[in-house]
Amino acid sequence: MTKASVVDQSAPAYAPKRLLAEARAASKVNIEQVFAFLEGSPEKAALTNELLAEFAADPAITQGPEYYDLTKAEQREQTVKKIARLALYLENDIKLARKQHHKDVVRDLQSPDAPMVTMSDMERFEKRSTLVALIDPQLATRLGVNLSLFGNAVRGNGTDEQIKYWLQERGLIFVKGIYGCFAMTELGHGSNVANLQTRATYDPASDSFVIQTPDLVATKWWIGGAAHSATHSTVYARLIVEGKDYGVKVFVVPLRNPKTMELLAGISIGDIGSKMGRDGIDNGWIQFNNVRIPREYMLSRFTKVIPGNPPKVEMEPLLDSISGYAALLSGRVSMVLDSYRFGARFSTIATRYAFGRQQFGDPTNETQLIEYPLHQFRVLPQLAIIYMMAPGAMKLMDTYNSCLGELYGAGDDKKKLTTVSARMKDLFVESASLKATCTWLTSTLIDELRQTCGGHGYSSYNGFGKAYNDWVVQCTWEGDNNVLCLTSGKSLLKKFAGIVRGKKVTICDTSMDYLRMDYIQKVVMGGTKKVSNLSTLPDYYQIWSVILVKYLKRCAETVRDNNDPESVSKLLVSIAKFHAFYSMLQEFHRKLASDQSHVGDAATKEVLWKVYKLSSLYFIDKFSGEFQQLKVMSPDQMTNVQEQMLAILPEIKTHAIRLTDAFHLPDAVINSSIGNYDGDIYHNYFNDVTRVAAKDKAPGVPPYADMLVNFLARGDQFDNLNISETSFKNLGK
Amino acid sequence: MTKASVVDQSAPAYAPKRLLAEARAASKVNIEQVFAFLEGSPEKAALTNELLAEFAADPAITQGPEYYDLTKAEQREQTVKKIARLALYLENDIKLARKQHHKDVVRDLQSPDAPMVTMSDMERFEKRSTLVALIDPQLATRLGVNLSLFGNAVRGNGTDEQIKYWLQERGLIFVKGIYGCFAMTELGHGSNVANLQTRATYDPASDSFVIQTPDLVATKWWIGGAAHSATHSTVYARLIVEGKDYGVKVFVVPLRNPKTMELLAGISIGDIGSKMGRDGIDNGWIQFNNVRIPREYMLSRFTKVIPGNPPKVEMEPLLDSISGYAALLSGRVSMVLDSYRFGARFSTIATRYAFGRQQFGDPTNETQLIEYPLHQFRVLPQLAIIYMMAPGAMKLMDTYNSCLGELYGAGDDKKKLTTVSARMKDLFVESASLKATCTWLTSTLIDELRQTCGGHGYSSYNGFGKAYNDWVVQCTWEGDNNVLCLTSGKSLLKKFAGIVRGKKVTICDTSMDYLRMDYIQKVVMGGTKKVSNLSTLPDYYQIWSVILVKYLKRCAETVRDNNDPESVSKLLVSIAKFHAFYSMLQEFHRKLASDQSHVGDAATKEVLWKVYKLSSLYFIDKFSGEFQQLKVMSPDQMTNVQEQMLAILPEIKTHAIRLTDAFHLPDAVINSSIGNYDGDIYHNYFNDVTRVAAKDKAPGVPPYADMLVNFLARGDQFDNLNISETSFKNLGK
Repeated sequence: MTKASVVDQSAPAYAPKRLLAEARAASKVNIEQVFAFLEGSPEKAALTNELLAEFAADPAITQGPEYYDLTKAEQREQTVKKIARLALYLENDIKLARKQHHKDVVRDLQSPDAPMVTMSDMERFEKRSTLVALIDPQLATRLGVNLSLFGNAVRGNGTDEQIKYWLQERGLIFVKGIYGCFAMTELGHGSNVANLQTRATYDPASDSFVIQTPDLVATKWWIGGAAHSATHSTVYARLIVEGKDYGVKVFVVPLRNPKTMELLAGISIGDIGSKMGRDGIDNGWIQFNNVRIPREYMLSRFTKVIPGNPPKVEMEPLLDSISGYAALLSGRVSMVLDSYRFGARFSTIATRYAFGRQQFGDPTNETQLIEYPLHQFRVLPQLAIIYMMAPGAMKLMDTYNSCLGELYGAGDDKKKLTTVSARMKDLFVESASLKATCTWLTSTLIDELRQTCGGHGYSSYNGFGKAYNDWVVQCTWEGDNNVLCLTSGKSLLKKFAGIVRGKKVTICDTSMDYLRMDYIQKVVMGGTKKVSNLSTLPDYYQIWSVILVKYLKRCAETVRDNNDPESVSKLLVSIAKFHAFYSMLQEFHRKLASDQSHVGDAATKEVLWKVYKLSSLYFIDKFSGEFQQLKVMSPDQMTNVQEQMLAILPEIKTHAIRLTDAFHLPDAVINSSIGNYDGDIYHNYFNDVTRVAAKDKAPGVPPYADMLVNFLARGDQFDNLNISETSFKNLGK
Repeated sequence: MTKASVVDQSAPAYAPKRLLAEARAASKVNIEQVFAFLEGSPEKAALTNELLAEFAADPAITQGPEYYDLTKAEQREQTVKKIARLALYLENDIKLARKQHHKDVVRDLQSPDAPMVTMSDMERFEKRSTLVALIDPQLATRLGVNLSLFGNAVRGNGTDEQIKYWLQERGLIFVKGIYGCFAMTELGHGSNVANLQTRATYDPASDSFVIQTPDLVATKWWIGGAAHSATHSTVYARLIVEGKDYGVKVFVVPLRNPKTMELLAGISIGDIGSKMGRDGIDNGWIQFNNVRIPREYMLSRFTKVIPGNPPKVEMEPLLDSISGYAALLSGRVSMVLDSYRFGARFSTIATRYAFGRQQFGDPTNETQLIEYPLHQFRVLPQLAIIYMMAPGAMKLMDTYNSCLGELYGAGDDKKKLTTVSARMKDLFVESASLKATCTWLTSTLIDELRQTCGGHGYSSYNGFGKAYNDWVVQCTWEGDNNVLCLTSGKSLLKKFAGIVRGKKVTICDTSMDYLRMDYIQKVVMGGTKKVSNLSTLPDYYQIWSVILVKYLKRCAETVRDNNDPESVSKLLVSIAKFHAFYSMLQEFHRKLASDQSHVGDAATKEVLWKVYKLSSLYFIDKFSGEFQQLKVMSPDQMTNVQEQMLAILPEIKTHAIRLTDAFHLPDAVINSSIGNYDGDIYHNYFNDVTRVAAKDKAPGVPPYADMLVNFLARGDQFDNLNISETSFKNLGK
């Protein structure tokens, strides 16, 4: 009863396919224009398409349903295979950038005399990396630990010579020669980096450092790549010189011999073992026992130890802290982009299922799930959220790249560095609130959309399970979401309080444009009341700045009275979220309203405006308590918001399939039996399930059949052999 | 650097242990009284303790951290081993009930002349089963499919002779002789049972049924036990007699020969494969190809086929539907109890971690997480929710058992059956709203508490990952939560509309006592206004009946105007949740205020009243939008609610460790490295991680080292061997 055996296209199993085709025919949304809008331009969209197509065609990267059946050991091994393969893509991408296909470009770049690798050399591979995160998050992380974490730790803290040496000559950014890990977190310290306990004590006699783990809680913990793959580590340790503690600095410490992968002397490493997700990453713990490294292995752009008697320490604390920001920001910025891409994948699956699946109603032609208002409410706002995240994610990435350019372009020019420091601080607030909000949103999205697929959402082959398990760590790592919200909420509050007290407060990002004295006064005086009627398109984002000002005012007053910022921490978490909504909706509006929206078709643009409205309405309703409590909206206005929202749903429904098609995700990338483009839910699902079970040698008979037979055999003989004629007759009474 | 190597008790690694000891000393809450309150009585608490201790001492059941490292194949096999072991506990429990230890009581009970097994024979094992669900959910389900699903399908639909034969003579309820599965769901139909497509066509010539899967979408899907273990199945199929379709009935269909586990003729079975969680269950799909079973294998309590020419069909539709209710209810009722027990486990872990973990503040003695107001808000309401669920879960279980007693006691007495039918219908509403609400709450609890444990929450050995994956299917199976909320919301709305129109409406459960004309009028006339000030203890539950009446009124008006109940479906989901809060808080209040609270110590009772208040306040705040929109509370009252809630948190904090100790969960049952009673977080965690990694033959060197060496070897030689003296000097500049 497989695909080929049912040739009658009117059989129930073919209904979903037909329903999806009908849905596509019913909408005229121009999906190429929408794709260009989401990705930033037709050129960027084309590149996304091209790279996704390469991966979709490469079974070494996109593995099909078997991917969901791998054991931990298999995941670890296959991830390395994939990294080896990506290293080849990487070399190819650099050759393409340098237009040199006739020689070993990478080997040339490793020579000490070679020019520095440029941003444009790596651009194509960096885009590729963000797409790897969509297909196989653990692969992206395991490679990212080397390229981004080790790489950025060196870039942020090393001298030019050190950067060139470690990243280029040694081959790290080519995934060649050495493999790096990032040893920051310890068993007892995560968020509080300043209190890490690993020590790097300078020994003047040998001009070297002794790296030491002083006690159990100082064990480096969770270190991705440490258990199996890293040959080198950037170790965050306290610099101790002549008994004085200079705080946490970064050191390159070799861990393994790359020729054998044997651990070096003094290095104790263990496997962290199983995790909720991402078992393809070899997280490990490291203890250092009198490990010696040369002084030159300390990354010393901002802090230097000068040998001598006594030795001296030169520090530049301000620049040190900026570089610290920069290293952390890369991950956060990427996670906002990941939220959009990953969310798009699961939104596509659930939307297709909602159109293909029928339930209740006319027994011979049951109602499509998407026709139920409740189901529309469960599925369509999640789709709108993806659309809300995309422009914000692209903007954040651009801001980050321009900041980074400024930072690295500044060289040692302290004035330029001070200027970029202010931009970095705002970017820190912005990226913290967006990272936390978007990773939470995508986490909820995966969970809620899985539920909309009923029992089938629970099958591994439909993708939600592993996706959720892989995803949720994004809410914790590189800044716990609650801690990030608190930090960015506090920064916004501080700016607000400063402005109100008439201080000069620097605002670099347009997303903070509500932090102006005149605007604050306007809100407080009630001059923004008509925004609450949502009568113009900008109102849908501006209303979030109204509630932000009112909320910040309330917090500022509380803290002024009780002098305890912790007392408003619950509110600050909401403020960080609201700021993210404001920022994303503002950019959604700006981009769609601009000449560069790339959406020429008026009807298509109209649909996108509805999506824009829905994403704002959905969150106003979700936070209706705050909107009423802060008197931004009255109960009646809230009723109106809810009516508007419910009225938009059926309008978006008509275009929902095309709005997910517009993500342009190939089936091999989506990797979900019920989520394929053709909508042939039941055949695809059945075929995938039987495909992965094909290795089963005796279908239906378990490998441990003896065990079952033995313990059941305490009982009766097989059917009917033992039953008395009377008993049997009684059964039929 | 393991446990034994640190003997200095002032070392940082020992701080958590000391902090937990201090927290225990700081509270005088009587945990035995609290335990008795939660479990219902000191006797019940003692039995819970006794059975948990048996399991904690049995390494065949509680496996330690290795449990989290099992592959799917290992989980499948070990679950069967555990079932074989539980079968021995079961025999022992029956012997204990019958006070007969000198002979094979079960063999005697299998004789056709033996008396029926009684409720009290099974009581101890049933309690045991609910505790198995806490330790190893997949084990409980895989056994429950046989005992409860197959068992209840036969009990609900079989004649007395059939019940006796299948469950007792054949040994099913003794987990002996045969093993049952429950083949209801199909690939294309889940919630809509009435439209299942599998057919059972009566063949008068041979007086037998032909069971047939007509097409792919009618494939039985998700059937727990089908892939490996079931010898028999209760199959839900359309009864077709002489071409007429009599709707879905239940048939016992043999699947495998219990002596070999080979599939029988006409039975096609495949493995469903990997799932998000519960991989220890062998879910499978089944297709029937001309499978013949004797007429006697149709379960025919309410529908009989009478052989003859032509054959006749006798039906009792009303009774048929009651029995349908009863079979479904058992699972739902259990899931409310599971929510309490499972939630208690994870609340214990997170609370202990919150006291033992220190972060930020004084670098030499950092602040305990629990001291942060935001952390209190993240952890303590979750603990309160567990306390809110316990009394409601116990009440629901009692109501269910008494209903079931009435149903089975009624025999064929139709009057009694009609009476019990009304009770069953209310119980259906009650259990649907509680099942959905509580399983969602526990799902959120596991997720949010995992996040409070930071990165360590993501380690498999701390339990959250598998727990979440195992848990969330509870939100989908045996009634999708949204569908259940919609159904129970609609029933409440129907009752409400009936009462308002002056119809006679039967209300059986005290949780629906707000559905009275006088009370509705009082709410509408504003006679309940002072409840909103929360000035007395009952106000904390009664406020939920105020909002329920107002919400139902709004829905009733909308539907009266637009005649479309689907238009209020989003609101009905909230109504179902609010009803669950009302029901649980009402019972929490009733029980704690009664003479049978078992809490004699006044100070302890005082703490429990605070927990009661917190659980109500937490949800009022969470649904503050609805409370303001329906004008149950003004914005200022809402501010007051939030202030009250934040003020209670530090008061409960003082007792939080004892409030989790009161659950009496042994370490082996909790099975979380950071969640042990002694609070020795870092040693326990490190020891567990190294224990599971001990099988690693070459620590630090991956099994696939060659692969890494090969692809990295495109690169450089090992450290420093190749570097020029000049390059090396440059590094140190």
